[in-house]
Amino acid sequence: MYKLYGSPSTAGTAIHWMLLELDVPFEAVLLDFDKGEHKTPDYLALNPDGVVPTLIVDGAPVTQMAGIVTLLAERHPEAGLAPPVGSSERAPYLSWSFWLANSFQPHFRAWFYPHEPAGGEAVDAVKEAARVRIEQGLARLDAHLADRDVIVGDRFSTVDLLVTILCRWTRNMPKPATAWPNLKRYLDRIRQRPALREVHAREGLTDWIDG
Amino acid sequence: MYKLYGSPSTAGTAIHWMLLELDVPFEAVLLDFDKGEHKTPDYLALNPDGVVPTLIVDGAPVTQMAGIVTLLAERHPEAGLAPPVGSSERAPYLSWSFWLANSFQPHFRAWFYPHEPAGGEAVDAVKEAARVRIEQGLARLDAHLADRDVIVGDRFSTVDLLVTILCRWTRNMPKPATAWPNLKRYLDRIRQRPALREVHAREGLTDWIDG
Ligand SMILES: N[C@@H](CCC(=O)N[C@@H](CS)C(=O)NCC(=O)O)C(=O)O
Ligand SMILES: N[C@@H](CCC(=O)N[C@@H](CS)C(=O)NCC(=O)O)C(=O)O
Repeated sequence: MYKLYGSPSTAGTAIHWMLLELDVPFEAVLLDFDKGEHKTPDYLALNPDGVVPTLIVDGAPVTQMAGIVTLLAERHPEAGLAPPVGSSERAPYLSWSFWLANSFQPHFRAWFYPHEPAGGEAVDAVKEAARVRIEQGLARLDAHLADRDVIVGDRFSTVDLLVTILCRWTRNMPKPATAWPNLKRYLDRIRQRPALREVHAREGLTDWIDG
Repeated sequence: MYKLYGSPSTAGTAIHWMLLELDVPFEAVLLDFDKGEHKTPDYLALNPDGVVPTLIVDGAPVTQMAGIVTLLAERHPEAGLAPPVGSSERAPYLSWSFWLANSFQPHFRAWFYPHEPAGGEAVDAVKEAARVRIEQGLARLDAHLADRDVIVGDRFSTVDLLVTILCRWTRNMPKPATAWPNLKRYLDRIRQRPALREVHAREGLTDWIDG
């Protein structure tokens, strides 16, 4: 039985969604950021960065949103949420997974925590640079989806799950992901998935899922 | 036969080293950044970010340093450079791989390209924030290595390869990785690996390998 430490509408939502896709038993602890529940000594012992998600797997904490979904797909191969090792889709699967983690997700960190890269003075410049990089990334995803329904191969994978969560984070940005036509078509289809609708209900999220 | 696009003393060095560890046939094309060889239309068609590394695998380009080493370890399981799927080391293996890609390597990008996060005005503040984050990451690695010789399980893996390359990048920073005692012991041992010494020779790198 898995135990997830998450928080509504965060990177923890990706793992919460993944667990519902897999239809495996789990317990979800949704931390209250306003009360600082992600900065307590007990939680920092599990996740020294003081961020969500953390997933307890076989009694040990596992961190990193993209790492956790990759691990869960491996542990539950019957769900088919990652191409099997040895298949030709492993190269694009791993390349996209690490592109999202290394070259796309960090710009969201900068957008939502703009004091981190250069202190309080540079907040506006940081947000502007992050906006440009995020829009470049969205444009790349949109171009890739011109003649495809999913990012890798021909079935939904953890890469699509990560892309969807990151796209959701743009919903209040100047140019949200749904402003790109191929991304909109792609997201409209994924937003029908029962597990994504269920995680919205469980975390009390009412916007975006039908927009 | 693999074809690597790299450049001396870059993220490409990680893949060059990995290919030598695996002892597989490959061709290495070392691009000259000063001549802009990583920004030509031909190269941008392979790697739209205009960065190295790119590895041609079965005729198709694969990008992302951490993604490529993960893929290569999977394709050559006999080398034992990643714990097998299904083993208990997969959780720390994937968690550390994505921590390096998502939460550590981006601070090096900020340190070496400090105009990117917030424009020219904020260069000093960006470098200072990146230095602090890099030193926090090194401290975490050092603590983890207090009673261990490798990061995951009990044998050298692609996580150690990535850690070593990232540590090498600190060699001219205010507090280099070798200033931490456990990291120094760890790196001293890894710097004896024949494939790492060979990649230094092939890329014409003379510093750090014996320091
Ligand atoms: N590298 C982490 C980053 C996770 C992250 O930034 N989580 C945010 C929420 S989306 C968080 O916990 N923020 C609270 C904080 O930084 O104090 C991952 O990918 O899991
Ligand atoms: N996300 C890429 C980043 C690679 C990267 O930043 N490479 C640097 C060299 S270490 C580069 O090619 N820089 C040239 C440039 O940005 O113009 C990866 O991990 O492969």
